[in-house]
Amino acid sequence: MLIAPPEVRLPPRDAVEKAVRELDRRLGPSKVDTSDGGRQTHARDDSAAVGRIPDAVVLAQGKADVAIALEVCEKHGVPVTPRAAGTGRTGGAVPVAGGVVLATSGMSNIVDIDREDLVAVVQPGVVTGALHAAVEAEGLFYPPDPNSLSSCMIGGNVAENAGGPRAFKYGVTREYVLGLEVCLMGGRVLRTGRRTVKGVTGYDVTSLLVGSEGTLGVFSEISLKLVHAPTQIATVLALYPDVRAAAAAVQRVIARGLVPRCLELMDAWTLDAIRRQGVSVDLRANAMLLVEVDGRNAPLDGLLEALGETLSEGGQAIDVVAAQDEAQRARLWESRRMLSMATRKLAKYKLSEDVVVPRSRLVSLLDEAARICELEKVRHLTYGHAGDGNMHVNFLWDDDSERPAIDRAIDGLMRATVRLGGTLSGEHGIGVSKAAYLPLEQGPELVALQQDLKRAFDPSGLLNPGKIFPTGHASC
Amino acid sequence: MLIAPPEVRLPPRDAVEKAVRELDRRLGPSKVDTSDGGRQTHARDDSAAVGRIPDAVVLAQGKADVAIALEVCEKHGVPVTPRAAGTGRTGGAVPVAGGVVLATSGMSNIVDIDREDLVAVVQPGVVTGALHAAVEAEGLFYPPDPNSLSSCMIGGNVAENAGGPRAFKYGVTREYVLGLEVCLMGGRVLRTGRRTVKGVTGYDVTSLLVGSEGTLGVFSEISLKLVHAPTQIATVLALYPDVRAAAAAVQRVIARGLVPRCLELMDAWTLDAIRRQGVSVDLRANAMLLVEVDGRNAPLDGLLEALGETLSEGGQAIDVVAAQDEAQRARLWESRRMLSMATRKLAKYKLSEDVVVPRSRLVSLLDEAARICELEKVRHLTYGHAGDGNMHVNFLWDDDSERPAIDRAIDGLMRATVRLGGTLSGEHGIGVSKAAYLPLEQGPELVALQQDLKRAFDPSGLLNPGKIFPTGHASC
Repeated sequence: MLIAPPEVRLPPRDAVEKAVRELDRRLGPSKVDTSDGGRQTHARDDSAAVGRIPDAVVLAQGKADVAIALEVCEKHGVPVTPRAAGTGRTGGAVPVAGGVVLATSGMSNIVDIDREDLVAVVQPGVVTGALHAAVEAEGLFYPPDPNSLSSCMIGGNVAENAGGPRAFKYGVTREYVLGLEVCLMGGRVLRTGRRTVKGVTGYDVTSLLVGSEGTLGVFSEISLKLVHAPTQIATVLALYPDVRAAAAAVQRVIARGLVPRCLELMDAWTLDAIRRQGVSVDLRANAMLLVEVDGRNAPLDGLLEALGETLSEGGQAIDVVAAQDEAQRARLWESRRMLSMATRKLAKYKLSEDVVVPRSRLVSLLDEAARICELEKVRHLTYGHAGDGNMHVNFLWDDDSERPAIDRAIDGLMRATVRLGGTLSGEHGIGVSKAAYLPLEQGPELVALQQDLKRAFDPSGLLNPGKIFPTGHASC
Repeated sequence: MLIAPPEVRLPPRDAVEKAVRELDRRLGPSKVDTSDGGRQTHARDDSAAVGRIPDAVVLAQGKADVAIALEVCEKHGVPVTPRAAGTGRTGGAVPVAGGVVLATSGMSNIVDIDREDLVAVVQPGVVTGALHAAVEAEGLFYPPDPNSLSSCMIGGNVAENAGGPRAFKYGVTREYVLGLEVCLMGGRVLRTGRRTVKGVTGYDVTSLLVGSEGTLGVFSEISLKLVHAPTQIATVLALYPDVRAAAAAVQRVIARGLVPRCLELMDAWTLDAIRRQGVSVDLRANAMLLVEVDGRNAPLDGLLEALGETLSEGGQAIDVVAAQDEAQRARLWESRRMLSMATRKLAKYKLSEDVVVPRSRLVSLLDEAARICELEKVRHLTYGHAGDGNMHVNFLWDDDSERPAIDRAIDGLMRATVRLGGTLSGEHGIGVSKAAYLPLEQGPELVALQQDLKRAFDPSGLLNPGKIFPTGHASC
């Protein structure tokens, strides 16, 4: 059961043919893939959103290719869907109007790592994990760590403003993007931002582009802020009899002003999924916190002691234990990282939301999710970045006939989130999957203003159409 | 010698009269000041930019007043210049086209300080120092600390994306603005952003508004992220024989990955200004670093020891000494905070720039400033946020006949900054004072795109005209 494409204008056949011929001529046939296999591979991403099979895939090798593709497509009125790794969770890279998919995965150079200025300059096709490895080899650190870091790419991370567990201490991708080279529909190339840590010259066009889900421009080069790598890291696991006790512990950690780099919560159903993967977790536990602290040039003992006390306070914890060595630490995180895959095995279909509430409302959100799923008789499990109030509520089902109930449950969750003062998405974006819900959170005037901003970048509306803003009919 | 107003369209007299009459009728006469004194007080800010005397000053007491003022002025085609405390350094609050000054200084309520969610909700007229006091009374912390914190207001801080010494560790205002209530020209009221720490729903309109210098909208309410207050603070003073030795020490601190909250540098001429204020500074010293570290729930000893070592390394330091008590710490900072005032006494005229270079180019920037000033026979002194590469280069002169040389020196400094990979402004904005230099840093297509964004918010161009973008003739 998949999400149908939204209502969008499709390009005329002859316009597409002319555009593809011109792309072929100007870029060379090796960069323009019109094979069935190539087109089908680029029709989906890692969400349930269904696109149309694109008419061609441009495999850009550099800025000039990106600019030419955007120039040619604008000239012929052909929609363009930018794509890096295609690991997005809300359909951002799905070509809902057909046309051309502009793939930047071939632009995978790390252009510069500047140790003195703490800046990395990268192309959009650099795999996030590869950037981590490269900067860590220099004693530096790029904190954002989306779960898919072994395959997702920086271009997509910037387009979606990706987060990850370490966001609790270090913030999300936006906090690390200093400047962009961006190609606009029509082929203009702009440089925004700077290489300095501060700067207020003109509007913050860089921040506007971060998280714009490929609807404003296509990045050809990205300047990222780095920090020095932590020299000490420690991981603590805390088990609780129920999710309310775990959420209360999260709130105690925050209230005490402790700042671990990660503060992850897993509920009872999630622990079951982990146990099924062969990881041994105390059977009395119905909730787990995975907490990680780091530091530089200073021992962690004091912080770990305060953390241990705070997690145990109130006497509800079943166990609070620090990882004894790097191997044990790696195993703990492995169980966290495989959650997305592990939970897929629990049912034929899975849909993961990533709502955020103010941290004080974490228990309310978990209660609401349970209430809604009970009402609709829908299976769910919840885990995520509890420190940020950002939870992944996963809905599971096996039969297409359950889909209406799932839809009602998602709708209920979105409404509950907004009622609790929260936001629809913490790190996955709106894309196709949540466009219909945007008006729950944002008033018509804010939506209209954003559409005006979109027109300032892309007057013809050909860049990544059908995303973020609701179209004629409900899209999910 | 002041900066002449830029070329802007002035409103027709009868339109202004109609607007003022309607404002008077709808807001009540107590909120519409047309007295000579009131109008003159609101014609200038804390920069050299000269405005026209406004036709009226609206003293807004709440959101409704702001919206009405923007509706009435749009209807009659009258320019509006928003203003909080008027402490800006580049003319952002100066009414260069006359019309109406919209003062939000009367909207000075702290609406909420939420200890659990670490959020403060404030009106734009709250004095930054008053917010500091209020949140610190709750054990919380709002880090941005512009030099004028005892008089500047949050609305202006957000409009200019203000910084301050603590930005080295904590970042600038943008990092703390979660959401805004903003009134647009014509009277629409929007809510942008969120109360949660994460969120990627739609475009980041909030970040676009932060630092937009009052040209896109007028803030009526601001939601700010807070952090827990540090429990330990220590201040260290390091004296060097010359500014190169001090700058080298700054680079060593950064290279070692130490993160003090402040890392401030003062050059020889600045130390002279301090000595003239009666502060005793070792006469062998021609450069000083003021370094401050903080922490929470953990002793600072290790960090202080590493810092002391790093500042002394190389054997050039004349003295490295930690403040012995809170009184001594306060005196050190007092000498830093009074610099802006103290340097004003050195000459009849002073113009302070706030250029930023990548941190590795700090010595080059200082060398360039000295070379340019020697060439033009212009007096200058430099101090500022060395850790961020953000230096305040102050030009001093006594006679109007020196102004052409000053202008050439500023021009040379701007060009050198851009050549070194830097940016024109770190925290003061562009306003009127630097609009002519914008094209040095930003290409015509980026400038045109920003003007398109401006039109999306303010199609009639009536909100704070003449700012940021260069007008017909050179404005400084």
